[in-house]
Amino acid sequence: MKRALVWALGVLFSASAAADEGMWLLNDFPATLVKKRYNFLPDQKWLDHVRLSSVRLAQGCSGSFVSPDGLILTNHHCAHSCVEQLSSAEKDFVRDGFYAATLAEEKKCPELEANVLEEIRDVTKRVLDAGGKKSGAAWNDATRAEIARIEKECAAGTEVRCDVVTLYNGGRYHLYRYRRYQDLRLVFVPEFAIAFFGGDPDNFTYPRYDLDMAFVRAYHNGQPAKVEHFLRWSEAGAAEGELTFVTGHPGATQRRLTVAELEVQRDVALPLVLHYLLELRGVLSQFNRSSEEHKRISTANLFYVENGVKARRGMWQALLEPGFLSQKIAAEEKLRQAIRRRPALAHRVGRAFEEIAASQKTLRAFLPRAMFLEYDPKVPLLRGLGTREDLLRIALHLVRLADEREKPNEERLSEYSDANLPALEQEVLVAAPFYDDMQEVLLAYSLSKLREALGPDDPAVKAILGAESPEELARRAIRETKLKDLAFRRALFAGGRAALAECRDPLIELARRIDGPGREARKQIWERVVAPVRRASEAIAAARFALEGTAAYPDATFTLRISYGAVQGYREFERDIRPHTDFRGAFARHTGREPYALPASWLAAKERLELDTPFNFCTTNDIIGGNSGSPVINQNAEMVGLVFDGNLQSLGGDFYYDGSQNRTVAVSSRGMLHALERIYRAERILKEIAPKK
Amino acid sequence: MKRALVWALGVLFSASAAADEGMWLLNDFPATLVKKRYNFLPDQKWLDHVRLSSVRLAQGCSGSFVSPDGLILTNHHCAHSCVEQLSSAEKDFVRDGFYAATLAEEKKCPELEANVLEEIRDVTKRVLDAGGKKSGAAWNDATRAEIARIEKECAAGTEVRCDVVTLYNGGRYHLYRYRRYQDLRLVFVPEFAIAFFGGDPDNFTYPRYDLDMAFVRAYHNGQPAKVEHFLRWSEAGAAEGELTFVTGHPGATQRRLTVAELEVQRDVALPLVLHYLLELRGVLSQFNRSSEEHKRISTANLFYVENGVKARRGMWQALLEPGFLSQKIAAEEKLRQAIRRRPALAHRVGRAFEEIAASQKTLRAFLPRAMFLEYDPKVPLLRGLGTREDLLRIALHLVRLADEREKPNEERLSEYSDANLPALEQEVLVAAPFYDDMQEVLLAYSLSKLREALGPDDPAVKAILGAESPEELARRAIRETKLKDLAFRRALFAGGRAALAECRDPLIELARRIDGPGREARKQIWERVVAPVRRASEAIAAARFALEGTAAYPDATFTLRISYGAVQGYREFERDIRPHTDFRGAFARHTGREPYALPASWLAAKERLELDTPFNFCTTNDIIGGNSGSPVINQNAEMVGLVFDGNLQSLGGDFYYDGSQNRTVAVSSRGMLHALERIYRAERILKEIAPKK
Repeated sequence: MKRALVWALGVLFSASAAADEGMWLLNDFPATLVKKRYNFLPDQKWLDHVRLSSVRLAQGCSGSFVSPDGLILTNHHCAHSCVEQLSSAEKDFVRDGFYAATLAEEKKCPELEANVLEEIRDVTKRVLDAGGKKSGAAWNDATRAEIARIEKECAAGTEVRCDVVTLYNGGRYHLYRYRRYQDLRLVFVPEFAIAFFGGDPDNFTYPRYDLDMAFVRAYHNGQPAKVEHFLRWSEAGAAEGELTFVTGHPGATQRRLTVAELEVQRDVALPLVLHYLLELRGVLSQFNRSSEEHKRISTANLFYVENGVKARRGMWQALLEPGFLSQKIAAEEKLRQAIRRRPALAHRVGRAFEEIAASQKTLRAFLPRAMFLEYDPKVPLLRGLGTREDLLRIALHLVRLADEREKPNEERLSEYSDANLPALEQEVLVAAPFYDDMQEVLLAYSLSKLREALGPDDPAVKAILGAESPEELARRAIRETKLKDLAFRRALFAGGRAALAECRDPLIELARRIDGPGREARKQIWERVVAPVRRASEAIAAARFALEGTAAYPDATFTLRISYGAVQGYREFERDIRPHTDFRGAFARHTGREPYALPASWLAAKERLELDTPFNFCTTNDIIGGNSGSPVINQNAEMVGLVFDGNLQSLGGDFYYDGSQNRTVAVSSRGMLHALERIYRAERILKEIAPKK
Repeated sequence: MKRALVWALGVLFSASAAADEGMWLLNDFPATLVKKRYNFLPDQKWLDHVRLSSVRLAQGCSGSFVSPDGLILTNHHCAHSCVEQLSSAEKDFVRDGFYAATLAEEKKCPELEANVLEEIRDVTKRVLDAGGKKSGAAWNDATRAEIARIEKECAAGTEVRCDVVTLYNGGRYHLYRYRRYQDLRLVFVPEFAIAFFGGDPDNFTYPRYDLDMAFVRAYHNGQPAKVEHFLRWSEAGAAEGELTFVTGHPGATQRRLTVAELEVQRDVALPLVLHYLLELRGVLSQFNRSSEEHKRISTANLFYVENGVKARRGMWQALLEPGFLSQKIAAEEKLRQAIRRRPALAHRVGRAFEEIAASQKTLRAFLPRAMFLEYDPKVPLLRGLGTREDLLRIALHLVRLADEREKPNEERLSEYSDANLPALEQEVLVAAPFYDDMQEVLLAYSLSKLREALGPDDPAVKAILGAESPEELARRAIRETKLKDLAFRRALFAGGRAALAECRDPLIELARRIDGPGREARKQIWERVVAPVRRASEAIAAARFALEGTAAYPDATFTLRISYGAVQGYREFERDIRPHTDFRGAFARHTGREPYALPASWLAAKERLELDTPFNFCTTNDIIGGNSGSPVINQNAEMVGLVFDGNLQSLGGDFYYDGSQNRTVAVSSRGMLHALERIYRAERILKEIAPKK
């Protein structure tokens, strides 16, 4: 809501907007820009060090090593699922926090995976050559097969993860080779009440007062992983105006989309997801309120949904801003004129813009159906909203894996390629509890929205639901399924087609009915939208490189990036927002009522605290969702802060960066130290991270 | 969702679009158009007869007298609240239906009010003269005072209701004098399962199979009201191609808005309400599922919310259609050119378009706050989303009434004018049960969305909530309030300022804290938006009259209108939709599972039915929400059907009418007769409505 006002006042798109813009590739660091603006030039050693100290949490977050013994600092909200999975009705670590006073007490997180980026290689030529002059399904098959081949050649064993990353929407392909850690253990989290102080109302706002931190540890062969590169902890934190870097894994941006694509985002894609999440928020908050146990088992889910609502609403409102779209239209026209002036470029680009526009027209009609029927990790348009329940997702994987494993590696759906099997195995064989009440609500909701989106008379809906109502089917399938049992899943995972064929589990049966329509939807979207858009974007990207050079960063792809900026406040509603908050402010905001209730540990420790210690701070670094848990790093490659959010004005960051308003929000390294010392007395960790005095 | 596809295929805005367009004033019947198109010219007697047979249900529906003894036919969904209010945990008339086999068994509905339009008078000159050359607050006060004066002069006693109606957004003011009935009793409703067969999934779709009917009876002095005018029941129903009229009370359309106003609707106003309702749908559906009793007490509410979601989503999607807005832009430009060509008109219109655009810019910034803080029945932009709970609304009325009654009639907020007091009294002193669980959920939701919209640091939010969370406050206030007790409300209603001042009821206290910020928000919207828009629209309307004559209908205002059309199918997705459905189709759609479960009475009666009897049908009449319960009338002024819905394509009807696609959906008079005879054996009613054989 606040956002709307900001726009109305017309403060966006000011001249200084692009100052600290960019989520840069580690192998394409904007040295000249940073040198010019901040008079600092990191050398290759510095860059390699921060790269190898940075961690990707495969479920969608970032982090960093902060000790030689594999200790990883990330956000509470990145470890929230783990904390909830490790809890029980008797022991609620979400509510009470968790601290392993000894190494032996560290607890394995059921599904966290950490990746460290060891190498980047350009494989553009191989992929483009494979696609050649093909189009549609043929282009699609050839490109996919080549990518599967490259990834398989690279990956050896479960400790190496290899992903071919599509950059510039098809303009470049890079192979990322990661060291993979699948044994991560929980070391410390504070109480949820302070990790997410202010709750949804304060989410994406600033000033803030959140200790949104978690320590997990990477293990190797059952022992703490020894790592060469880790960030030293700055005791001082960062001062106002100081240069800051953020390394991390921004999930996705859409700054290079054409106008036709942006309009589909605004009119169809974003509203579909936003409306889905809004109603789900209502369902989950009512469920959450209905008993103590329901609260415990649904809080993490509710948090993610609320966060999604706020983020997507902000993105959507950014697209509604008339100033933004007219600026985009003008920029696109300018680019097209420049292309027309150079015949060779014009020939290369051909009708690329028109082809994208035509594909978007198709997409408008297909999208609702496809987005509900199919989930594809490679296509943000395919969110599987109609199958958004954990056990059903697992069932779908088992059904498809059995079929896909029979095919040559290059012909499989990407999730089932050899290179991806370790990640898939961890997802399917997760050792976490599933609660019937919660899963039933999620499944009933997904199926009822599937029916709403496609209509009750759609043949796929009729086949999937049969005569049952979504609620009936969900209740029966969740109560009766054996997929909650890990041994049962393990047998199906290993058993292949034969084991699957015999299986009459109700969720497996349901997954079988979804499989066909889902594959068909995926095929349509790839052949009629993704393939033509990639081919056209490749041509446009080539023209851009010719006109502008590569001094521009590609859209985010949940791969490692570095951004630069400075600790800096901003102006909002004729009010100056200072860049730092302190512990005093947290106590001033405490009302004793959720979400403004400080935990008992804080109230008890108040006398021991130095209340003017910096707590949170904001910087001009350009980040986006996926950067959660990223370290804020100073020139000495020390960790001065822990990114956990952006302000409301940053939500338009999907589409543009406005340096006057867009802010990264982080916990101060000094504030974290202070809390660990004075409130949590976490001696073992303090010794391990031992900041330089 | 289907809607999106329709647009994508570009079938809207076809040449034949405007054929049967229009919601016409009864005192401005489009005789020439109808004569030309259908070769039928109703005389004044015919028009007077259908007017006096038509009924407005003041809560937002339409109906018609169908017997000389005050029997009113309307929709089940118009009487749904009454049916729920008359039910108890022991006797659930929503689930089981209701039939009063004798007059004595007819049950009084707690809050239904029926109005019959007895006279229309043009008072434009008085109102415009009062406003004169004033602007802003002064224009507002003077106009409001004059309207209150006119209404008071007209209304005598509780049996006359007088409303000054604003037409052409300020271009005309008409005084409507109604006969008012406040004693309405429930006579018959079928089971909810058949009244709303297909539930939300089928809502706003066609073909349909709903017996969405109810009989209530108007009483006068404790006896059935004797009425001179009523519609005779057609046993045959309407044939394909037959001319049909619909009389009723379309709530609001926005076909004459300027482009600037439409953009605010698209970007701000509609999304605000839609998002609010979407999440509330989630909350209520989860509540509805949680127990049998919760289901019973929340089904009506859930229905209205689901209906609101679907309707508003359709409206919003209509505004997104690029073809629509570009057409509007062109039409507006054409009008402005025509005005510029005539200097006298240009002088009269002045900067009216620019003034509207400027007011809309203000509105963008103010609207979220105002729409949550204040409800104003006269301004669709003020929906009081933050106070949307029945008991709190009553508390607000009591708090304000005590103050307003002290003022001269002309200076009061419109709800508290002398002319409006009977309606207010019925609302405040409603003899209906309030269920703590339900009201608590609604209040907690409203207050939490108020906090979300304004932000937790907003001074009004801080004052309204105090230190409590929305949930805590809602729980305490609903559990402790005495407003559930009718005698307590009666005492406060009668007691005036003194009684209020002493009252420490928690909901009254809450209402006091909302009163001030609410009044301020209303004042701002009236002075900075409504007043300038009305003044400017008045000038534009005058120019339109000069250029086009009055051969155009004004936007709908929940006042009596007549539309003409014909029984006619349409083409959708390359499929021909026939205009009639039959009873066989209902049985074919029966799965036994909600919402596709026919009630036991139908299954038992199947053998007795003639399955090819017409059940529902669709026509080209131009209607909108508020027309629910309207009669479909043939040339002989017989009732041939009962309007209960429009198809999905009609949801854009707020903004435009597309004759090729937009359809009114009705229950056939023949189908109703058949069900009453063969399934419900409602002998007493059948005798009373006695159709001509």
